[in-house]
Amino acid sequence: MTISIHGLAVSRGIAIGRAVVVASSRMDVGHYFVPSDQIENEIQRLRHARNAVVEEILKVQQGLQDLPNDAHPELSALLDVHLMLLQDEQLTSGVKHWIVDRHYNAEWALTTQLEVIARQFDEMEDPYLRERKADLEQVVERMLRFMRGVASPVAAGADGRASADSEVPLVLIAHDLSPADMLQFKQSVFAGFVTDVGGKTSHTAIVARSMDIPAVVGARSCSHLIQQDDWVIIDGDAGVVLVDPSPILLAEYGFKQRQGEVERDRLSRLKNTPAVTLDGQKIELLANIEQPEDAVGALKAGAVGVGLFRSEFLFMGRSGKLPDEEEQYQAYRRAVEGMQGLPVTIRTVDVGADKPLDRGASRPADDYLNPALGLRAIRWSLAEPSMFLVQLRAILRAAAHGPVNLLIPMLAHASEIRQTLALINRAREQLDNGGQSYGHVKLGAMIEVPAAALTIPLFLRHFDFLSVGTNDLIQYTLAIDRADEAVSHLYDPVHPAVLQLLAGTIAQCREHGKGVSVCGEMAGDVTLTRLLLGLGLRSFSMHPSQILAVKQQILRCDTTRLQTWAQSVLAAEDPAALMTD
Amino acid sequence: MTISIHGLAVSRGIAIGRAVVVASSRMDVGHYFVPSDQIENEIQRLRHARNAVVEEILKVQQGLQDLPNDAHPELSALLDVHLMLLQDEQLTSGVKHWIVDRHYNAEWALTTQLEVIARQFDEMEDPYLRERKADLEQVVERMLRFMRGVASPVAAGADGRASADSEVPLVLIAHDLSPADMLQFKQSVFAGFVTDVGGKTSHTAIVARSMDIPAVVGARSCSHLIQQDDWVIIDGDAGVVLVDPSPILLAEYGFKQRQGEVERDRLSRLKNTPAVTLDGQKIELLANIEQPEDAVGALKAGAVGVGLFRSEFLFMGRSGKLPDEEEQYQAYRRAVEGMQGLPVTIRTVDVGADKPLDRGASRPADDYLNPALGLRAIRWSLAEPSMFLVQLRAILRAAAHGPVNLLIPMLAHASEIRQTLALINRAREQLDNGGQSYGHVKLGAMIEVPAAALTIPLFLRHFDFLSVGTNDLIQYTLAIDRADEAVSHLYDPVHPAVLQLLAGTIAQCREHGKGVSVCGEMAGDVTLTRLLLGLGLRSFSMHPSQILAVKQQILRCDTTRLQTWAQSVLAAEDPAALMTD
Repeated sequence: MTISIHGLAVSRGIAIGRAVVVASSRMDVGHYFVPSDQIENEIQRLRHARNAVVEEILKVQQGLQDLPNDAHPELSALLDVHLMLLQDEQLTSGVKHWIVDRHYNAEWALTTQLEVIARQFDEMEDPYLRERKADLEQVVERMLRFMRGVASPVAAGADGRASADSEVPLVLIAHDLSPADMLQFKQSVFAGFVTDVGGKTSHTAIVARSMDIPAVVGARSCSHLIQQDDWVIIDGDAGVVLVDPSPILLAEYGFKQRQGEVERDRLSRLKNTPAVTLDGQKIELLANIEQPEDAVGALKAGAVGVGLFRSEFLFMGRSGKLPDEEEQYQAYRRAVEGMQGLPVTIRTVDVGADKPLDRGASRPADDYLNPALGLRAIRWSLAEPSMFLVQLRAILRAAAHGPVNLLIPMLAHASEIRQTLALINRAREQLDNGGQSYGHVKLGAMIEVPAAALTIPLFLRHFDFLSVGTNDLIQYTLAIDRADEAVSHLYDPVHPAVLQLLAGTIAQCREHGKGVSVCGEMAGDVTLTRLLLGLGLRSFSMHPSQILAVKQQILRCDTTRLQTWAQSVLAAEDPAALMTD
Repeated sequence: MTISIHGLAVSRGIAIGRAVVVASSRMDVGHYFVPSDQIENEIQRLRHARNAVVEEILKVQQGLQDLPNDAHPELSALLDVHLMLLQDEQLTSGVKHWIVDRHYNAEWALTTQLEVIARQFDEMEDPYLRERKADLEQVVERMLRFMRGVASPVAAGADGRASADSEVPLVLIAHDLSPADMLQFKQSVFAGFVTDVGGKTSHTAIVARSMDIPAVVGARSCSHLIQQDDWVIIDGDAGVVLVDPSPILLAEYGFKQRQGEVERDRLSRLKNTPAVTLDGQKIELLANIEQPEDAVGALKAGAVGVGLFRSEFLFMGRSGKLPDEEEQYQAYRRAVEGMQGLPVTIRTVDVGADKPLDRGASRPADDYLNPALGLRAIRWSLAEPSMFLVQLRAILRAAAHGPVNLLIPMLAHASEIRQTLALINRAREQLDNGGQSYGHVKLGAMIEVPAAALTIPLFLRHFDFLSVGTNDLIQYTLAIDRADEAVSHLYDPVHPAVLQLLAGTIAQCREHGKGVSVCGEMAGDVTLTRLLLGLGLRSFSMHPSQILAVKQQILRCDTTRLQTWAQSVLAAEDPAALMTD
């Protein structure tokens, strides 16, 4: 019987495939397919890992016995239990099944089977026994840690990915996914994904759109309702997930899938059309990118530059090791050269509380009561000035190879601005002293904290251009976490207060002849294009996949008429009611 | 050797006593002293709890063996380990020590000894063994759960507290404390407290001030540096904690302690002096309270009404059982009658994500990515309309006994205002239909979300008065979590953006002849009294203990001169620099 689960449609398109259900904490293992002749090798890797963990535990046990006074005899007994868990028949035979029958790599097979057994624990009646799941997880975690040191020969190779094409498509089902998890998907085998939590502008959703694969988030208990290997249809347009669909449904959605491809083809003809309104206003359409390699897609979509290079993606998922100046410089340079003379706006890292560089190395989670209100972005950079200087030097050096704008996130205090500008000067001095060449950069600030939007004159005194990060600006202005499903219905881009801050920022920039652009989700939302044009915005930065649809809107607009209408929206108590005109 | 630890001074005064170091999760057990003739009884309670848990585990083990197929043989072995932990000599003899030698009640003794052993685990070299601490914690948790059902005869009785007076003063040292933990302190034996985390306006700090006991928060690793039973001096004025102080230091701080009492006596003479400025402006000084009984303290401090009755404190720490309409009505009525005809402003519950009603019953913590931006206050009330109606009816009924203002927290959207007003009408209808008498209330809204401060005209159309919750307003405007020590230095009540919103709110209310007051921490901060007067504020609501000091300031002020000065502060890029004038 088909089950349908409703969530939020966050990335368009249809995906049809088999479910891979994972826990977020286990996303950071590789997911790839293993060719037939390598299967025996994967089973070997698993066996080695298990034996190594057994040895480790025996050694710990030995150490305990060597202690002068037998302080904790129960610890040794506990270790015996963990040794038993390692030999559990359900674990070992189950893992083999995923490797042999599905060609999963060893880590993927191990974590998949862990999910299967963990579900059995979850269903136990006695709460005490349910809690014992943690012991199994610890044992598996230990095996994974060992395997990390001994990579599979096919890991990260093109072979693995190539063999995926011959298989059935897979869709990922999870409770939640971290930015680091999502990053890994860039090389992943998944055709779509679904999460229990998250909102329309959660990082999960942003990355999904950036990969242009269908996604539904906020699908409540999907990760519990969907079982490993179930057939699943993800409708990223309607925000619906169909589990175990009937043949009729499969045929219907297969048709929709092909129709979507036709529509995309049609839009692609706009690629070389200039983005000019009916009344002749030239609009700048820029791309948001996350990796130097995304420059290709940006150019392909007709972007006239990069409005937001989220540099933090270079910093994530690196197990605590940060990229050094040379590596960063090369990455920025590749982006600059990739854009072939068009400007690239590089935002300094927006990591910190909500996007930890490395889960293992970060502070314990309970320290972050409200990560969105914590040590993130420029606050983090100013708290780690030596790391920040490395990034600044790398960006300045890359600017020797093409036009670069330097963008600073999350500024809210005059003192932060002073410190930031001083560090930029310091970075230039350091390059001068080292005799290294670097280029001129235009300096920009993100307006994403209400305090910043309320003190625009201060920012205009210090910066060449401003960029409005609407996602955060909305979040703070309304005090709504965009990823919290309990309140996500209150996250409202056209709330009068938000529009007031946005309109004020745009107007003050134009008055002073300074550039202003919007790089949040609002910029790529075609239902808001007219309003933003009406408020005076002439520069939009969005994911490449959204550029052509926004351009199509722009070609139909007359900004003189929109201006009057936008003023009435701005004055309305309920602007949303006027938006449907 | 004396160690000194620096933190934030959040509640004034000096405390000198012995350290009780606790983990936050174990705060919700009772803390009281047991008379000598009851000691044997406490040891019995402990023994019964242990035996009951042993039986429980044996029963679970039996159930496992009855399962058709022996699916998880290792589980039974795990249970054996937990049985061993229960008999651990270090646990049983240690707990006895705290009961016999220190007269702690059984729960307190058990959790104290758990801390002692947990520290040993934390110091183990092998990370694997360190993690085993969790097993011990689970066993203790199980014993506590059992003891909850079998209360000590002295628990919650006056006897227990009385016997505390004959003992050495105790000070509480913890990593962090929840609002529910703090509530319990109202009947606690502690003379002061210190936490590792927290900021100046964290709930912890607010409640500490409300109890008028010295407190230092954000003292980094104090809960690790201070050992059970250490002598500690808490200097709540300087924000310093001295561990193991020398006799000279003890004498010095003893003298300071007595001096503080003299100063308080002096201020108390202002109690009946009217709060009028030099130029004859009458200023309204109101009290923030948390319990009906706090009305006594409010009157004693010379408050002319209650500006904020935080009703959520009636709702907390009740193990999931919410107070019914009759119980709430009686509580509100006690507060109204306690104020003897002076107005009482009752704020509907501000519970939700960051102040869960009951830890056990709430959603798992990882669901709240950013509790401050989640389902709290009016959002929670609107999501639970039947619960909200109970509260509204209780407040309306209490209004029959004296002047009551009804205050709604966290409003930010026009639709929320509409829903709230509709529910208030519904509550009145329900009372009419039931033939119950109720009184007239004035309706007020908290201004604490930037979106609200930016849409004051909307609020003035619907409400009789506004109350600015500066703590949250600052938090959201600056995107700074006031409790996060990593960014608490950026929490700035005189940030130009904050002052702009505050000044705008006050000015618009005065223009429309509507009442406006400030009930956040700013109202009770004597260093900000002049600025608030200069911005036009005439009504301040604060903790009773701050009223006389603020009144002293007011008596020295001339508002006509302050007005000009406040305008220059408002226009400054760095207002803090002008504040020291």
